[in-house]
Amino acid sequence: MPEIRQDPTTREWVIIATERAKRPHEFTSLSSAADQASRSCVFCRGNESQTPPEVWRLEGNGQWRIRVVGNKFPALSSKATATRYETPPFYRSMDGFGYHEVIVETPEHDRTLASMQEDELVDVLLTYRERYLALKADPRVKLVLIFKNYGERAGSSIAHPHSQVVATPIIPGHIRRKYEVAVQHYDDTGRCLYCEIVEAEDRHGQRVVYRSDQFLVFEPYASRFPFETWIAPFTHNASFGKTTNQELRELARVLGVTLRRLHRALDDPHFNLVIHTAPVEDELQAYFLWHVEITPRITTPAGFELGSGIQVNPCVPEEAAEFLRDTCLC
Amino acid sequence: MPEIRQDPTTREWVIIATERAKRPHEFTSLSSAADQASRSCVFCRGNESQTPPEVWRLEGNGQWRIRVVGNKFPALSSKATATRYETPPFYRSMDGFGYHEVIVETPEHDRTLASMQEDELVDVLLTYRERYLALKADPRVKLVLIFKNYGERAGSSIAHPHSQVVATPIIPGHIRRKYEVAVQHYDDTGRCLYCEIVEAEDRHGQRVVYRSDQFLVFEPYASRFPFETWIAPFTHNASFGKTTNQELRELARVLGVTLRRLHRALDDPHFNLVIHTAPVEDELQAYFLWHVEITPRITTPAGFELGSGIQVNPCVPEEAAEFLRDTCLC
Repeated sequence: MPEIRQDPTTREWVIIATERAKRPHEFTSLSSAADQASRSCVFCRGNESQTPPEVWRLEGNGQWRIRVVGNKFPALSSKATATRYETPPFYRSMDGFGYHEVIVETPEHDRTLASMQEDELVDVLLTYRERYLALKADPRVKLVLIFKNYGERAGSSIAHPHSQVVATPIIPGHIRRKYEVAVQHYDDTGRCLYCEIVEAEDRHGQRVVYRSDQFLVFEPYASRFPFETWIAPFTHNASFGKTTNQELRELARVLGVTLRRLHRALDDPHFNLVIHTAPVEDELQAYFLWHVEITPRITTPAGFELGSGIQVNPCVPEEAAEFLRDTCLC
Repeated sequence: MPEIRQDPTTREWVIIATERAKRPHEFTSLSSAADQASRSCVFCRGNESQTPPEVWRLEGNGQWRIRVVGNKFPALSSKATATRYETPPFYRSMDGFGYHEVIVETPEHDRTLASMQEDELVDVLLTYRERYLALKADPRVKLVLIFKNYGERAGSSIAHPHSQVVATPIIPGHIRRKYEVAVQHYDDTGRCLYCEIVEAEDRHGQRVVYRSDQFLVFEPYASRFPFETWIAPFTHNASFGKTTNQELRELARVLGVTLRRLHRALDDPHFNLVIHTAPVEDELQAYFLWHVEITPRITTPAGFELGSGIQVNPCVPEEAAEFLRDTCLC
C-alpha cells in the first residue's frame, strides 16, 4: 500500500508510492517515452484488456470514444484506509488512501489536445467534470486534482493522449497557503483575489493572450515559467465541478485556441495542464476561482529553485503574451 | 536589469531574469549541454579572458586552482538597487539586486566532485564559506544560497565542474515557512527541530547512509525524491558561515564518501546539491541547523506535483538508505 508521510520541517505531504516503486537498483536505468513507444500501446483500441478495469466510458457508434481506467501504477489506492499514524517525536503518516485514474482522451494514438476538433475537446472536459463529481462523492476525498502531462519533459511516459485524476484524503499545505492568502484578501477587500486579478489583467491588457465572452487567457504577472498561461472565467465560481455544459463548450473553444497558439509559437512544447479547483468542502467559497494553468516545460528548475523556492524565469511575461497574441493560426 | 516580482496568490517571489532572457521566438530551440560541450570551454585554463571578471581565486604553484567569477547571465545584478514598487491593486516588485557568482572548482574539465581528492574538496568547501562571508558583508544581502547543478537533468548547461552562489535581497516565503515550523517546535520543546531529527535518525538507524564523529548522512523520513540525501552536523549551528576549518575538512571527507556512493549506486546520476543555511540576520538562531541536501534528478515532477505541492516519490527511503549503505566503494 502507498504511504503518505509528512515532512516535519515543512509540514508538506509526500506520497511514498510503493505501487509504482522500483527496487533501488532499478533507478540506474531510466525508462523513457521512447521505450514505451516501441511496445504496443495499451491505450489503443483492441488492447482494452491490458488496462486495469474501466470505470467509465463515453461511446459513439457503438465504440468507446473516451475511456477512464484505474492507473496501473497508482500513487494512491482506493483499497487503503485513511488511517493516521504518529511516530514520536515528530513523524506523521497515513495509509495511502485515494484514487488515481487515467482518462484516455481518444482512441487515436497520434492525436493531441491541440489538434482535436472542438467537439472532442468538449467531451474531454465533460469527462473531467464527470470524474470530479464521481470522486468527490466519496466522503473521505478532500481534493480532486485533474491534470495532463504532455511529453517526456513534462513527466509523461506514454504517448497516447491521456489525462489523469488524483483524489487525495488531505488538503496539501501548498493549497492551504494559497487559500490563506485569498482569505486575507477577501477579509481586507470583500472581493475574490482571483476575480480581481482577472479583471485587472483584462483592463491592463499587456499580459492578455486571448479573451472570449466568458474566459480570459493571460500570462500571470509573476509567471514562474516561460509562457506560463492561465485560462480563467470572468464569473466567480470556486469549483470546476459547478461549471455548466455551456461554460465547458466555451472553455473547449478557448482551450483549443490557446493550445494551438502554444503549439505553433513553441514548436509543440511539452507541458503540464492543471485544473485548479477548491477542495470539496469549499466548493461554495467566495474567495477562490477555479481556473486552468498550463506550464510549458522549457526550462529546468535547479539548485537555486530547490533551495530558495524562488523560480527564475528567463522570459518576460508581457513579451510572451505579445508573442502568443501575434501567433497566427492560419 | 532583472526584476523580482511577487505572486499575489502565493506571496512567493519570482525572478524575471532579463539578463538571461531570450526573445520569445528563441524558446523553440533548447540549448543543451551537448551544444556547449562542442564549443571550447570558457572555464578551462587559458580561456580566463572569456569569463566575466574574476572576484576571487585560490592558487597553487603559481596557477589558479579555483576561480570565482561573475555569472555571465546573472539571475540578479549587483548594479541594481533594491528599490520596491507597488502597482495597485496588488502587484509588488523590486529591482533585481543581488549577486550571482560561479565557482570554477578545478581547472580540470573532466573532473567531478565525486572523483576529487579530499584536499580538493576541502578547497571547494573553503571557497563556499569564503564567498558566503564576502557576500553577507553587503548589508542589503538577506540570504546567501550556495548550490551545484550537476548534469543536464539537474539544470546544468556547462560540463566543466562548477558551483554557484546567489545572494538575494529578500528572504523567500519558502524559507520563512520552514523557519515558522522550526520556531513553533522550539517554542513547544525548547529544542532545535533539525538537531532532534539528526538525533532521532541516528538512533533509529534505518535511514542512515553513513556517519562520522561530526556528521550524519541520511535519507529524510519524507524524502521528496528517490535517494534524496542530507548531510547534517551533530553540533548545533544555524549558519554555514560559522563552520570551522576542522569541520569543513571532515565534511569534505563525508561528502566525498556520499557522492561516490551515489555515483556508484545510481551510475553517475545528475543531481542538485544545496547548502541550507540561515538568513544572514539569523546566523545565531537556536532553531535552525545548516546542512547539505543532495537531490538526484531521476524522476520528473509533473502536473500532480505542480498542482498539489505533494511530491510523489516511487522509492522507499529506508530501502534507498540500505542500498547506499551496502554500496561498495572498493
